[in-house]
Amino acid sequence: MNVTNQISFEQTRITDGFWAKKQKLNEEVTAKAVYDRFSDTHRFDALSCKPLSEHPGWEPHIFWDSDIAKWLEGVAYILTMHENEELRTLAEKAISDILNAQTQEGYFNSYYQVKEQENRFRIRNNHELYCAGHLMEAAVAHYKATGERYFLDAMCRYADYIYQIFVTEQSAEFVTCGHPEIELALVRLYDATGTEKYLELANFFVDQRGNNKKDAAIYDDEPRYAQDHLPLREQTTAEGHSVRAMYIYSAMADLAKKNADEALFMACKKIFENATQKRMYITGALGSTHIGEAFTFDYDLPNRTAYAETCASIAMTFFAQRMLALEPDAKYSDVIERDLYNGILSGWSLDGKSFFYENPLEIDPYLANRITATKTKEHLPIMERVEVFDCSCCPPNLVRFIASVGNFLYSEQEETLFVHQYMSAETKTEKGTIVQETNYPNDGVITITVPDGYRRAAVRIPGWCREFSLNLPYEMKNGYAYINISGETQIQLTLELEVRLYASNLQVQENAGKVAVGYGPIIYCIEEKDNGPLLKSIYLEKKPEFKREYCEVCGVQILKTRAKRLIPQDGLYYDAEDAMEEIPLTLIPYFAFANRGASEMIVWIHKLM
Amino acid sequence: MNVTNQISFEQTRITDGFWAKKQKLNEEVTAKAVYDRFSDTHRFDALSCKPLSEHPGWEPHIFWDSDIAKWLEGVAYILTMHENEELRTLAEKAISDILNAQTQEGYFNSYYQVKEQENRFRIRNNHELYCAGHLMEAAVAHYKATGERYFLDAMCRYADYIYQIFVTEQSAEFVTCGHPEIELALVRLYDATGTEKYLELANFFVDQRGNNKKDAAIYDDEPRYAQDHLPLREQTTAEGHSVRAMYIYSAMADLAKKNADEALFMACKKIFENATQKRMYITGALGSTHIGEAFTFDYDLPNRTAYAETCASIAMTFFAQRMLALEPDAKYSDVIERDLYNGILSGWSLDGKSFFYENPLEIDPYLANRITATKTKEHLPIMERVEVFDCSCCPPNLVRFIASVGNFLYSEQEETLFVHQYMSAETKTEKGTIVQETNYPNDGVITITVPDGYRRAAVRIPGWCREFSLNLPYEMKNGYAYINISGETQIQLTLELEVRLYASNLQVQENAGKVAVGYGPIIYCIEEKDNGPLLKSIYLEKKPEFKREYCEVCGVQILKTRAKRLIPQDGLYYDAEDAMEEIPLTLIPYFAFANRGASEMIVWIHKLM
Repeated sequence: MNVTNQISFEQTRITDGFWAKKQKLNEEVTAKAVYDRFSDTHRFDALSCKPLSEHPGWEPHIFWDSDIAKWLEGVAYILTMHENEELRTLAEKAISDILNAQTQEGYFNSYYQVKEQENRFRIRNNHELYCAGHLMEAAVAHYKATGERYFLDAMCRYADYIYQIFVTEQSAEFVTCGHPEIELALVRLYDATGTEKYLELANFFVDQRGNNKKDAAIYDDEPRYAQDHLPLREQTTAEGHSVRAMYIYSAMADLAKKNADEALFMACKKIFENATQKRMYITGALGSTHIGEAFTFDYDLPNRTAYAETCASIAMTFFAQRMLALEPDAKYSDVIERDLYNGILSGWSLDGKSFFYENPLEIDPYLANRITATKTKEHLPIMERVEVFDCSCCPPNLVRFIASVGNFLYSEQEETLFVHQYMSAETKTEKGTIVQETNYPNDGVITITVPDGYRRAAVRIPGWCREFSLNLPYEMKNGYAYINISGETQIQLTLELEVRLYASNLQVQENAGKVAVGYGPIIYCIEEKDNGPLLKSIYLEKKPEFKREYCEVCGVQILKTRAKRLIPQDGLYYDAEDAMEEIPLTLIPYFAFANRGASEMIVWIHKLM
Repeated sequence: MNVTNQISFEQTRITDGFWAKKQKLNEEVTAKAVYDRFSDTHRFDALSCKPLSEHPGWEPHIFWDSDIAKWLEGVAYILTMHENEELRTLAEKAISDILNAQTQEGYFNSYYQVKEQENRFRIRNNHELYCAGHLMEAAVAHYKATGERYFLDAMCRYADYIYQIFVTEQSAEFVTCGHPEIELALVRLYDATGTEKYLELANFFVDQRGNNKKDAAIYDDEPRYAQDHLPLREQTTAEGHSVRAMYIYSAMADLAKKNADEALFMACKKIFENATQKRMYITGALGSTHIGEAFTFDYDLPNRTAYAETCASIAMTFFAQRMLALEPDAKYSDVIERDLYNGILSGWSLDGKSFFYENPLEIDPYLANRITATKTKEHLPIMERVEVFDCSCCPPNLVRFIASVGNFLYSEQEETLFVHQYMSAETKTEKGTIVQETNYPNDGVITITVPDGYRRAAVRIPGWCREFSLNLPYEMKNGYAYINISGETQIQLTLELEVRLYASNLQVQENAGKVAVGYGPIIYCIEEKDNGPLLKSIYLEKKPEFKREYCEVCGVQILKTRAKRLIPQDGLYYDAEDAMEEIPLTLIPYFAFANRGASEMIVWIHKLM
C-alpha cells in the first residue's frame, strides 16, 4: 500500500466548462425534478411513518428511504457549494419528518415502521441496513454542509442501535445485510464523528460476509448474488449483483486503508482487475445480465441485453477512488474517467429530467417491439429515459454524484499533489489554491497552477492518450508523470486528442471484427436518427477519417466520416455480394444516445479489414 | 389449384447411394435403438395400462403413446420395404398391448386410462387427440404394410368414438386439440378406409380452430401458440409452436385438395410464403425461440438460441409436400430438399443412435458451461445428441421419416411425371418402372428412365443450381423443366454443383456481413474440432477457393479453404488492428455437427469484403 488522501470536493469549485454546466443542470433541473417525482410518488410523504389507514392508495416501499437519503445527500453537496433556498427548505422538511418519526431506540425505516413492525431486522434482503447506510451518508453530508449536528446525531443513535442489535445482542435474524452499503457509510460516520464503534461495526460486517451460516443466500440459491460465496478476503472475482458488489468492495478498500489490512487490499486488487479486465463494458458499465442485475463470467458482455446499471458505474467510481487512495495508479483513475464520460452520464438525459437504469450498448426497437407483441418475454432495456422508476435508485444517485464530482480531481501524499481528472476548477488546500484551466474533454490543453508548499506533482496521462507534452521534466510511473516543483508552479500539460478505434478481446465473440470509436475519454455510438436503420449493415472504412463538429446540446464534439453500407436485397437468403454503397456516417457520444426518442443504436460497429 | 398425386414410397425402392445408406442405418441401428430407449423408459410397458400400484417407480406420460405410435409407423414403413422379423415381433407385441387395453368405447390412452380416468377429453393441452392421431397414422401404415386390418379397425373404432364425443355429443371440454395432428391423421384414415365421417371430422376440427370460444388459450394467454388467434382460413403468417403449426398447415393443405377449398389453399400459400421467406433458418429449421417452441416474428432468427426442432423440419416437409400436390412449384420441393439435407438430418447422429431435439446454428460451449456455473438460466440447446429425451418426439419421427423418404421423389398428373428429388431408386407405377440413377448429392449427374405411358416429365431444377444441362428439349415453369416424351425415355440431367456463399436479408441483423456456405443442397458449418476455438474471429477470403474431399463418415464431401483469423491479443480493449493470420479452414456439412463431442460451431461465418 502507498496511501494518498483525497482532496474533498468541498474544497473545490468547478469554475467552467463541461462539468460546470453539468453541475448547473443538476442543481437547477435535476435535483428539483427528482424531488418532484419522489413527491408525486409519496416517497416524501412516507417519511412521517403515518399508519396506512391515513393514506389509502399508496404504501411505503422497502427502498424508498434510500432514494430520499441519496437525494438529501445530493442536496447537501449542492448546498456545500452555494446557497439554494428552495432545495434547503425541502431537505430540512424531509429531515425533520425523519427525526420526528425516529423511534426511541433510534430506529428509522418508513417501510418497517408502517408495514412490518414485527419484522425488523428479520429479512435479510429487505434493504433495511442499506437504507440506514444511505441515511448515515446523508447525515454526514448534511453536517458537513451546514455545521448542524441534529441529523448526524440522530443517525449516530441509529448506528448505536444497530451496533446493539447486531454486535451486543446478536438478536437480528441475519448477520450482514443482503444489500451492502452500510459498511462504507459507517466508515464515513466514523470519519465524521471519530466514534470507534462505527469503524468496529463496519469491520464486523465486512468480516462476517460469506463467513457465517446464519446468512442465507437471498437470490435463487446463489450466494454470489450478495457476495456471500466466500469470505471477502478470499474473493478474487467481481460477482453477483453489480451495485451491491461495488459498494462492498468500496467498503473493503476503505477498511484496507483504515486498518492497513494487506489481505483486504490484495482481495480488492484482484477483484478490481477481474472487474475491469474481464467483466466491464467499454463504457465502464457493469452487470451483464438482468437476472440478478449481475456480473456473469469473464468476457460475457452481451451488448443488447447488457444490464449496465447507472448505479453500478457510479459505485465503481467509489471503489476505484478508494483503490487510488491505496496506490496511485492510473488504472484506477482511467476507470473513473471511463465511467464519468460514458456509463454514468448515459444514465442522465441531456435535459436533466429523465434517467436510464440500464445502459445497453445496443438498442433495436424492431426486436424490442415485436418481442412484446408476441409475448416472448425476453427482458430488454427500455429505449427512452423516464423521469422516475419504481425502483428509482439511479436518479438521486446521479444528483449526489454530479454534485460531488470534484472529489475525483486531486489527492495528496505529504508534499506530492496527484492530479487525477481534468476540469477547470479552483481548489483550496492548506498549502494554497490549486487552479486548473482547460477546455477538456474538447481539447487536451490543461494548465494547472500548483501553489507553493507542494514539492512534487503527479499528473495522470490517460490510458487513451498516445502522445502528450509537458512544460517541465517528468518521470512516468504507473500512468502518472511525476514532476518535481518548487514554489508556485504552472504545469502545462497537452494531451493529444485523436480518434481511436478499439477492438475487444476476441473472447467477447459478439464484438469480433467490430470496433468502438473513442475520442479522448469519450466513447461514441451510431444512432438510427442520424444514419437510418439496420446499423449492423454499416462498415467503417479500413482507415476511416473523421471530422469533428461541436454539438451544443451534447457539450462535446460529434464525429463525421464516410462509411460503407451493405445494399439491402429482397428475399431471405441470396448470393452474398460485396456490393456496398458509400454513406455519410454521424457518430454521437454514447452518453447522448436516446435523447431524440427511441432509435436503433450500436456502439460496436463493423469495420472493413 | 393444379393438383398432382404423390407416388407413394411404397412403390419405390431406394437402391443405392446416400439415402440407401441412411435407410439401412435407420433399419439396422436407429429403429432398434429407439425401441431400446423407449423400452428402458417404460414407454412400451405403459401400453398395457396397468394400474400404478403394479409398477411403482414410473408413471405414464401424456405424450408417450405418440412416441410409440411414430415408432410403430416407422417400423411399418421398414416392413413395407422388406421383412425384419425382430422389428415385426416387437411391433406386433406393442399393437397387441394397445388392442387389449383399448376400452369398450374404442378409447385408448395409456396416460388417461391409468392416471386421470375422470379427465378424458377435458384438458385441451394434454395431447390426447394428438396421441390418437399418431396411433391412427400408425394403424394406416400397419394396414398398408401387412394387409391386416386389426390395428386399423381398432383405430377406426377410436375415431368413431372421438366423432361421437366431439361432433355428435359435443361433450368434450374443448373443441379442438391443443396439439394439432389428428386432423391430418383423419385424412389418412379416410384415404385408407373411405369412411366419409373421418374426413368430416377433420374438416370439423380445421373449421373450428380459432373459431370458437370454448377453446381457451393454452400457453401463456397466447392464442397464437396453438394457432388459435384467427380462423385458419384467415391466417397469413406462421405462428406459435412450430410443430403444431406445421401439422395443422399440413391438414389444411390436405383438406384444400380434398374439398377443392380455394380459401384454405390461399391461406396455406400465404403461410408457406411467410414461413419460408421470413421465418426459416437457412438449414430449413423453424422455431426461433424455446419459449413456446415457437415462431416469433419476421427476420427474428437468432443462431445461438434457435429452437429449430427436428420435428418442425420434418413436419415442414409434410406441409411442403402437400402444397406440391396443390401446385407443382419448385419452391415447395426446394424447401423439402433444404430440410432433408440440413435441418432434419442434423437431428440424427452419424452413428444412428442419438438425437437432437433442437438444432441451433451456433454452439458456444464456453458460454453454455459458464452460464450453468453461475445459474443465470438462459435456455440454450444441448451440445451433444442424446439417445432419448423426456419428451422424445423427434427420434421416432426420424424413424418414420427416413423409412418413407421415397415419398418425396415423384408425383404425377395424368400423363405427366414430376421428378422432385434426386436419389437412386426404382419405382413401380401402373405405367411401368421409373429408374433413377445418380450419385447425388455428391455429383449432379442424374439419369432417369421414364417408362412408356408418360407423355411428359417435369424435372426440378433446384433453387441452388445456376447451371444445368438436359439431353432433351425442355421448357421451364415454376422451377421445373418440362420435357415432352414418347415411349420409354432416358432423361440425362446434369446439375452443376458449386460452392455458393449465401447472405441473409439485412433485417436478420445478426448475420449482416456473414455468409453461409452451401454446396449443392448441403449447408456447411465450421467446428472447433477442426478449426480451433473463437470461430467468430475467422474470416473467409473475399473470393474464397474451396477444395472438396469425400468424407466417408459423412457420406458427402467436406470443404477446405484458406481463411484469415484475427490475431488474439491480451487485455479486454485495445487498438483495433487489421492484423490477421492465414489459416486452413475445414467446413463440414451442418448435418454432421457435434458428432465428435461438444464443440464450438457456427454456420454464419465472417467474410472479408
